[in-house]
Amino acid sequence: MVSELAGDRLDFEFQRLHGMGEDLYAEVFKADKSRSCRVYAPVGNHEDLLPYLVRRLLENGANTSFVNRIMDEKLAVEKVAEDPLEKVANTTPVAHPAIPLPLNIYADERRNSSGVNLANDKLQLSLAADIQPYANSKNYVEPLLAVVLNQSSNTLPETDVDPSFPEITVAELRNSTGAEVDSAIMTAVEFSAQWDATAVNERAAALDKAADTLEACLPEFIALCAREAGKTVGDAISEVREATDFCRYYAARGREQFGAATVLHGPTGELNESSLHGRGVFVCISPWNFPLAIFIGQVTAALVAGNTVLAKPAEQTPLIAYRAVQILHQSGIPREALQLLPGDGASVGARLTSDPRIAGVAFTGSTETARLINLTLAKRDAPIATLIAETGGQNVMLVDSSALPEQVVSDVIGSAFLSAGQRCSALRVLFIQEDVADKIENMLAGAMQELVVGDPRMLNTDVGPLIEPEALKTLQTHAARMDNEGRLIARAPMDPELSGYFFAPCAYAIDSIEQLQREVFGPVLHVIRYRARDLDKVLEAVNNTGYGLTLGIHSRIDKTQQDIAAGARVGNCYINRTMTGAVVGVQPFGGERLSGTGPKAGGPHYLYRFATERTLTVNTAAVGGNADLLGMGD
Amino acid sequence: MVSELAGDRLDFEFQRLHGMGEDLYAEVFKADKSRSCRVYAPVGNHEDLLPYLVRRLLENGANTSFVNRIMDEKLAVEKVAEDPLEKVANTTPVAHPAIPLPLNIYADERRNSSGVNLANDKLQLSLAADIQPYANSKNYVEPLLAVVLNQSSNTLPETDVDPSFPEITVAELRNSTGAEVDSAIMTAVEFSAQWDATAVNERAAALDKAADTLEACLPEFIALCAREAGKTVGDAISEVREATDFCRYYAARGREQFGAATVLHGPTGELNESSLHGRGVFVCISPWNFPLAIFIGQVTAALVAGNTVLAKPAEQTPLIAYRAVQILHQSGIPREALQLLPGDGASVGARLTSDPRIAGVAFTGSTETARLINLTLAKRDAPIATLIAETGGQNVMLVDSSALPEQVVSDVIGSAFLSAGQRCSALRVLFIQEDVADKIENMLAGAMQELVVGDPRMLNTDVGPLIEPEALKTLQTHAARMDNEGRLIARAPMDPELSGYFFAPCAYAIDSIEQLQREVFGPVLHVIRYRARDLDKVLEAVNNTGYGLTLGIHSRIDKTQQDIAAGARVGNCYINRTMTGAVVGVQPFGGERLSGTGPKAGGPHYLYRFATERTLTVNTAAVGGNADLLGMGD
Repeated sequence: MVSELAGDRLDFEFQRLHGMGEDLYAEVFKADKSRSCRVYAPVGNHEDLLPYLVRRLLENGANTSFVNRIMDEKLAVEKVAEDPLEKVANTTPVAHPAIPLPLNIYADERRNSSGVNLANDKLQLSLAADIQPYANSKNYVEPLLAVVLNQSSNTLPETDVDPSFPEITVAELRNSTGAEVDSAIMTAVEFSAQWDATAVNERAAALDKAADTLEACLPEFIALCAREAGKTVGDAISEVREATDFCRYYAARGREQFGAATVLHGPTGELNESSLHGRGVFVCISPWNFPLAIFIGQVTAALVAGNTVLAKPAEQTPLIAYRAVQILHQSGIPREALQLLPGDGASVGARLTSDPRIAGVAFTGSTETARLINLTLAKRDAPIATLIAETGGQNVMLVDSSALPEQVVSDVIGSAFLSAGQRCSALRVLFIQEDVADKIENMLAGAMQELVVGDPRMLNTDVGPLIEPEALKTLQTHAARMDNEGRLIARAPMDPELSGYFFAPCAYAIDSIEQLQREVFGPVLHVIRYRARDLDKVLEAVNNTGYGLTLGIHSRIDKTQQDIAAGARVGNCYINRTMTGAVVGVQPFGGERLSGTGPKAGGPHYLYRFATERTLTVNTAAVGGNADLLGMGD
Repeated sequence: MVSELAGDRLDFEFQRLHGMGEDLYAEVFKADKSRSCRVYAPVGNHEDLLPYLVRRLLENGANTSFVNRIMDEKLAVEKVAEDPLEKVANTTPVAHPAIPLPLNIYADERRNSSGVNLANDKLQLSLAADIQPYANSKNYVEPLLAVVLNQSSNTLPETDVDPSFPEITVAELRNSTGAEVDSAIMTAVEFSAQWDATAVNERAAALDKAADTLEACLPEFIALCAREAGKTVGDAISEVREATDFCRYYAARGREQFGAATVLHGPTGELNESSLHGRGVFVCISPWNFPLAIFIGQVTAALVAGNTVLAKPAEQTPLIAYRAVQILHQSGIPREALQLLPGDGASVGARLTSDPRIAGVAFTGSTETARLINLTLAKRDAPIATLIAETGGQNVMLVDSSALPEQVVSDVIGSAFLSAGQRCSALRVLFIQEDVADKIENMLAGAMQELVVGDPRMLNTDVGPLIEPEALKTLQTHAARMDNEGRLIARAPMDPELSGYFFAPCAYAIDSIEQLQREVFGPVLHVIRYRARDLDKVLEAVNNTGYGLTLGIHSRIDKTQQDIAAGARVGNCYINRTMTGAVVGVQPFGGERLSGTGPKAGGPHYLYRFATERTLTVNTAAVGGNADLLGMGD
């Protein structure tokens, strides 16, 4: 076919692997002696060559391969030479009935969120066009209250900046005044009984509607996630998907758990029913690192359980929260049920959590802040509040000598450096069995050189900026300490001209996890070597950090996997993959001990914690007899 | 037949109701003219007479009644005159297949606890004989630790007295020393991973075994409940039954919730599992008013969920707790998993709750103490602890004009005065619609005169002693205040010679629930009249107390029942019955707001709060391919 296409041209050559295709080229050169064929042989060490040869053998040995078919004498030449594209075009594809389409993997319960295939050029271009209108839009953020107070003159507007270009203002911001916080609390208290009495189907329907709107607003949120939170396109898509999944998952759980009362089995002559209700007013305090997903996850869980909600978004990302609340209001959540109170922790947060009318707080953020909130709540002269806290981690990956190094390095890069390491689940400490440590460190150092740090709007960017100058300072200080205490394995390249809060991912070899007292929230990886026989001690040291969020295992030995998974006191354990990117309903997420209170977000028990249980007992025989017995027959 | 029996005796007379039995007696007197028959007629007002006549008509009109049968000319005289006892003896009773025996009402899940029919004289006598050996037994209580320290000389023994006869010592008591508390914590911490790794079936089996032993020890616990807690025989039987039910119910829930991991549905190529584990070390602080049931409920829930437990019993009832722990140890709970630390709240309780190694506390007691524990936990430099608190109530019963007064009075007596009002669920404030208030107050006053206050060992005793002199003082102070502020409706009679902490049940009419700021824990009932049109305001006032434990409704109007039940922010709502005596698994128990944190004890969500959730994600395709797809077929 190539000869055919070439016609008279001579500016090309044929090539074949030494020892293969001899018959084929003999045939070609029989027809046209002016052609030449270069014979090549792969050269390399055993380790590289073996996989190469195996791949070639598998390809060429396959029944459907050209090489195999051309040797089959029973096949007509026309069959061998037919156009494969034409053949595919003429096929009617039949889906395997047991393999659902991606949107349908949760069957009838809920629709999966839609992904975007960024490898498709056409989709890329149309997405870019859809994002464009939001790329430089002007925005204004203020409290979203049920009762609007005239407070505009009380506070000076603040600015919400782009961490990649801090000189650029993403939104003008007016934070909540004390009077607004108080007024919002009062409205939330007054409306809570009515909201709890609203049928859960109605509450859940609003969540489902919001999910559809979130998906429709994907281009806008890609723009806002980049501009306000420094998120790459891929991360922003995941963020919108997670937010969408939270809405649909909690809607489904709400219908299941808060619908009709459950009849409890007991003695005859009595009806016993159990039902779940909202606890009252919930405060949701969310972090900047998942400004849409965690924000909306907390809020929708509290709402569908029948609570009214006062949402305090992270100071760094109020605009995304503002848009999320607008979408929830548009989807049917009453303004009295959900109010947005932008502001800082010291004023708005503390005012909310010290108020005796607050029934519960859902918080995601640092372990220290969670402890402070807990203490503030406990000091109130009020009923004991519910506190659902998701906090920090000192997340570890354990790699033994049986692990596949290529996969380890790929998953380490993904877990430690992507999202600029600004995920609570991100890998912080990589334990490598000493026997394979040199090799993996080398491969890791090489892979890190390929990381692109820069403007998250660019599709080839792997690592965006840190969220704010304080974060940059903390990481720089930590890196300086590590330069002293540890050995630098590698630092990713970074354009020195970048003006934002960028920090080049780096990896340090250190001696012991005890050198790390706190979570370092960014793309700094610590690598520790261990001896195979010390695995138990390693696990003990990991458990002794007090944190228990995520843990990764790379091993091809079942027993090692099982032993580590059974001994690790962590919320989420991942084997032979990345340790980030938990999917709602599939990998319920959350840690234990210093890493959080539970229950797991996106899990089947989450809504229970937002609820109070009520039991109703009716003496049905009080009407004059036991109708159940009378109706029973003989 | 009477003539037959009488023979020649004349010292009796026949009687018949005016207008009835004329034919019968005509027949009798035909045979023997020396007999006479007194004719009587019931006299009374319409209200009393009508039910009487209806009962007579129902009796005599029944197909099976002698009066009906004697008139049936088709029946042979031999049939009418046959011996009914003989007839019953010759019957083989057939159980209705849809009506399970009491022991089997929970079907295959678990066996119901056994009751005792105290109306059966024979059973009464044999039970009394079984109780006898424990009636005056000498007892000694000390800490039950995994590692025994030599502390005997460090503390002076205290005495545990009988509240009915405070001069009598029930047990010598050695409370826990600080060193013992510390040692117990250390053992509990060290053993917690091993206990959590023990198969839940093994943990649950120990609970089931303990349940059987508790039932077998019923006579002992009847004696101890009377001696140490002043409990009547009926209350003690209920107590043992509740403890038994807790063991079996939590064993069943444990197997269901903590057994095999749950597979979560997600994308192919990945295994996702969720499992529940113990949180670590739980402290269980239990009250004296259910010294066996609540004590063992807390402890077994924490244990079956995989936590090690440090149990601090109420200072007033350490002996019953001591015996309960011994039974649990004998049933297979390791001593390292469960240790008993008798002592007071200020020393032992505070030392436990301020320790950073404690993962959670289950507490039942006063709202004030719960708040203090919460604050103590929050002040620790430690992971946020779980606090499950069941606290006080300001429990109300609402009675409208459609209620059946006899039933109301009976249920008020049962709810407010039995157990000497020392149940957290007990009725404190009775709201009566003004139209029926005089009548119900009168009936109540009459019924209260029938209450027997005294030694709880006597079967005819309705109301035993209060637990301790401080309780008596509090109630006397409150009654003195009520004598001033309210109007005494009635006070039950009481023998002035009683030497124990007895308090005669009393009822006061007051104006408003706002006159009561705190729970008054004893047999004092407050009665408030309301106008029918003010029902909403009443409900609002009840909700405004801040408490939300139990609420009773007596009404025969469905809409009233529904409206109140829907508007009441309480954990347990009871319609047309008493509002105490919640049954494990049937009426999950616990309040909201000032009355407790939830989840409900004896309910399906209780164990979740003692647990931490873990998710395990395995990239099953990492072995080289997706075996699920390969195994799927075409």
